[in-house]
Amino acid sequence: MSQTAYRTHHATDVTDDLVGKRVTLSGWVDRRRDHGGVAFIDLRDSTGLIQVVIDDEDMARPLRNEFVVEVEGTVRLRPEGNANDHLATGKYEVVADKVTVLAKSAALPFQVSTALENETETKLPSEETRLKYRYLDLRRPAMQRNIKLRSNMAKAARRALDEMGFTEVETPTMIKSTPEGARDFVVPARLVPGSWYALPQSPQLLKQLLMVSGVERYYQLARCYRDEDFRADRQPEFTQLDMEMAFVDQEDVMAMAEQVIKAIWESAGYEVTLPLPRITWQEAMDKYGSDKPDLRFGNPLVELTDYFKNTPFRVFQAPYVGAVVFKGGASTPRRQFDAWQDWARQHGAKGLAYVQFMEGGELKGVAKNFSEEERAGLREAVGAEEGDAVFFAAGSRESSQLLLGAVRVELARRAGLLDPHQFAFTWVVDFPLFKKADDPDDDDVAVGHSQWTSMHHPFTMPSKDWIDTFDKDPEHAMSDSYDIVCNGNEIGGGSVRIHRDDIQDRVLDVLGISEDEANDKFGFLLEAFKYGAPPHAGIALGWDRVASILAGVDSIRDVIAFPKAGGGRDPLTGAPAPISAEQRAETGVDYDPDEDED
Amino acid sequence: MSQTAYRTHHATDVTDDLVGKRVTLSGWVDRRRDHGGVAFIDLRDSTGLIQVVIDDEDMARPLRNEFVVEVEGTVRLRPEGNANDHLATGKYEVVADKVTVLAKSAALPFQVSTALENETETKLPSEETRLKYRYLDLRRPAMQRNIKLRSNMAKAARRALDEMGFTEVETPTMIKSTPEGARDFVVPARLVPGSWYALPQSPQLLKQLLMVSGVERYYQLARCYRDEDFRADRQPEFTQLDMEMAFVDQEDVMAMAEQVIKAIWESAGYEVTLPLPRITWQEAMDKYGSDKPDLRFGNPLVELTDYFKNTPFRVFQAPYVGAVVFKGGASTPRRQFDAWQDWARQHGAKGLAYVQFMEGGELKGVAKNFSEEERAGLREAVGAEEGDAVFFAAGSRESSQLLLGAVRVELARRAGLLDPHQFAFTWVVDFPLFKKADDPDDDDVAVGHSQWTSMHHPFTMPSKDWIDTFDKDPEHAMSDSYDIVCNGNEIGGGSVRIHRDDIQDRVLDVLGISEDEANDKFGFLLEAFKYGAPPHAGIALGWDRVASILAGVDSIRDVIAFPKAGGGRDPLTGAPAPISAEQRAETGVDYDPDEDED
Repeated sequence: MSQTAYRTHHATDVTDDLVGKRVTLSGWVDRRRDHGGVAFIDLRDSTGLIQVVIDDEDMARPLRNEFVVEVEGTVRLRPEGNANDHLATGKYEVVADKVTVLAKSAALPFQVSTALENETETKLPSEETRLKYRYLDLRRPAMQRNIKLRSNMAKAARRALDEMGFTEVETPTMIKSTPEGARDFVVPARLVPGSWYALPQSPQLLKQLLMVSGVERYYQLARCYRDEDFRADRQPEFTQLDMEMAFVDQEDVMAMAEQVIKAIWESAGYEVTLPLPRITWQEAMDKYGSDKPDLRFGNPLVELTDYFKNTPFRVFQAPYVGAVVFKGGASTPRRQFDAWQDWARQHGAKGLAYVQFMEGGELKGVAKNFSEEERAGLREAVGAEEGDAVFFAAGSRESSQLLLGAVRVELARRAGLLDPHQFAFTWVVDFPLFKKADDPDDDDVAVGHSQWTSMHHPFTMPSKDWIDTFDKDPEHAMSDSYDIVCNGNEIGGGSVRIHRDDIQDRVLDVLGISEDEANDKFGFLLEAFKYGAPPHAGIALGWDRVASILAGVDSIRDVIAFPKAGGGRDPLTGAPAPISAEQRAETGVDYDPDEDED
Repeated sequence: MSQTAYRTHHATDVTDDLVGKRVTLSGWVDRRRDHGGVAFIDLRDSTGLIQVVIDDEDMARPLRNEFVVEVEGTVRLRPEGNANDHLATGKYEVVADKVTVLAKSAALPFQVSTALENETETKLPSEETRLKYRYLDLRRPAMQRNIKLRSNMAKAARRALDEMGFTEVETPTMIKSTPEGARDFVVPARLVPGSWYALPQSPQLLKQLLMVSGVERYYQLARCYRDEDFRADRQPEFTQLDMEMAFVDQEDVMAMAEQVIKAIWESAGYEVTLPLPRITWQEAMDKYGSDKPDLRFGNPLVELTDYFKNTPFRVFQAPYVGAVVFKGGASTPRRQFDAWQDWARQHGAKGLAYVQFMEGGELKGVAKNFSEEERAGLREAVGAEEGDAVFFAAGSRESSQLLLGAVRVELARRAGLLDPHQFAFTWVVDFPLFKKADDPDDDDVAVGHSQWTSMHHPFTMPSKDWIDTFDKDPEHAMSDSYDIVCNGNEIGGGSVRIHRDDIQDRVLDVLGISEDEANDKFGFLLEAFKYGAPPHAGIALGWDRVASILAGVDSIRDVIAFPKAGGGRDPLTGAPAPISAEQRAETGVDYDPDEDED
């Protein structure tokens, strides 16, 4: 389907078969060079570049970068020695006999030309400028590739799901607020003044209703909305590949999801070997100081709590002492260790104790505070060699492990061990059912009003061993849930869901959600469970994050066509924006319910 | 992938190969019958039904309709003469030796059993009840088929688009308000108090930006939002298959769309012959009194303006007189013709003149008001036979034609000519560029502030002949736009878009949209057009309507998993609903801009 009203071929359709033939091409002027009265145009279309030769000055004169042109001409081989091996069409050029300017371009706010491709990203303007002129930014081949990659991902995932008997179902966007731990975006309902819809934080309850409806295998590339403060790399709207199955257990869902992941990675040219490895949540925390461990490299944490149990060093008289080895770190200059202290403070720690194992056996750093015996056995205990250093953390188990986990990743990053084209997957399984609601290290908003909140969400099934007792010992109760991790990113997660109203009631009780509140917020789900709800389980993949990992880019904004900037602003369109008084009146937000109540 | 933790097979996996083998099945108790101490359960899963035989009373006792059960047993052939030919698995039954109740069901608010399948729809409860218990309504096989059909449609369309080189791109939902003729749903932006996002009425401007971005072929199954009063069969959120192409003209888009339509209909088992017929907008109005003519039957309107040009009948001394034949209508009783008068008044007409051509040549009805000559030639002029009747309309051309067009369809409906399994497509082409803004027959909200508004939308390209003069003669200017019609429904429409800012400026001028207003509302698109916008064109298909036509159902609510009821209410979840004072405060809707302004 290359042939349209404006072209007979795309740029990369030009091959030996077309030499000597007339073609019509259309696209953008990527670059122009002039030699001896002849203009050489790199013509760019969605497939790539081709060189157009214009030896008529009148024809060539008006052409500037990013002009849109239609070129009629004849294909020929480039003169001997002039081929460009970096270009798919580098052997050919089109000698133009007619050039029509379809649209002009004003002076560009920044350079778009593919010639920039091999130059560093620092040539790019600020992200604010890139977003303001997103339509120019998207013309860059790197962005074109990201957009195409994302489209291919969807195709691959859908094919895999289709083969496994899934039905794609669209769920509504304007729904009832659901309790999933973040703030809702809300939409005033003009026809029911004073009432609002919420945009879904996920289709969680709707997909559970689909299971009750007998749609046994559901999926959707679902848009989700969370009105959070814009930290780090979050977007107010994001996409997840949402999947749910009836009459399955955890193993069924994990096996299904592995097929989907394999298909997605294959669509980008990467092989994934199944089954994927697994690690328990406890082991992930103990060995990697993270519930989403990066397994592209080793260097696990070493627990030294026992080792230092009688230590004279006050700082290490703590519930947990652990360490991570800094390979070859012994010779690190003092000021770099000082910089590590700053780094640690930015991560909320008081500092970062370290010891250097010098050649010849000398120990530097905090080792002077240890007992003789502790010094003597330390290198062997942590598994270091002479020439290495080691960082320590001591304090509560969880906060110390999280700090060491961050150190471990930062060491690998500085050592250049984080290859974006290597993918290390792992399932994390055996999560606790609940967590403390008041954990200051936790960003999530607590669901409910007790000291406990859900580790995943309130619809997560307790594991079989805990069905009868989870409410007696919420601290230790485990759930049937699972996260999928790639390169230190949680790219998805799911759980077996509660399908019995008696279990759901008990979970809500632990969370401190009253029957009235439950009925008000999701009584429809509890009601649905009364009419024959099958056992069901599901998973969702964070689509933007998966795309960014596969594209090898740091920010999800580089795999979203029109992302928001900080604060939810869109520098391109100016959204959000004030509305008129008339529009406001129509929304019904100023409706006074007291006027209608008696 | 039938095999999961709860089953070895689905119901319809049971074939001769499994006779004598042990199976585990899971699903719902569709119906239970008891004969001589043996219980016969129709077990229903997502593939269909299978009979389960339970001859253990204790095992059978608890089972009620819609209980969820896991059955272990042995497949056998049903006894001679007991096979059920209406059932795919009717030759077999499973003799249960273990039945596990996975979930119970309370007494049902209405019957779900597939036994209802062949009974009339009048057995269904009210739509309000169906929507309140949507998860039960969706278990009915008719609804399961609709949901599956919709999923298959998407698969087929995506495959066709993929083969034609399209890229799927997700565009944002929280955008800047765009001027497309309906009311926006709006979302308060907490982080920019007093500012709002709008939900897209369509991705129109965003897909045009994608064309400027060099994504030459875009598609998306896009959710769209219009805050309209809930008339007829509209939903506040709906889906369209949105497509746009660069470097194409009208013919390219129509050829592409035909491939997509063919693929969609094939996915439901219907063959579509290409190319599809075409009719101009003028011819559609003249012959069928509709811009979306139903071509499953003939019986075109007959224009009689000339015929009655010297008539003594005052009512027919009008700018337009036309007629439509009522085949065999001469013998219709008087009270039925009276009922047609009521029907006409409901359609906004004063009445509906008619003449009956009686056997033997006598004319009844308004014929007595005609001249002798008019009476003599009338039957031949309208193409009727003795025994037929004819309805007339006289007045303005457009309103008369629309009335006759409605009569034509109503006659066909009453004659049983509207076969839902026959599909008559036509393109409607050569639309006017503008229409009168103050047309009382028109539901659309005018875009702009002049006497003219856009027939499609303000971004529609004037046809080549009118590029230079459309603003001098807006009444007659034509556009490059096209609708696709099936069985009297507009199932899609599109146009060549304006890609030059000078033409866009002139169109906005005709619409009475000032430069300031234009810049405020979609300045970003006009700005984008300055940097090399390619010629582009597109089309969108109304996905819910297409699904309802293919499913053979009257309402789009029957092809949407969770539709809204009247007034935008969801009887299932109770949305929309009040929000808390705290939530309201957080939205920032009560922010007073004066406090910050100087």
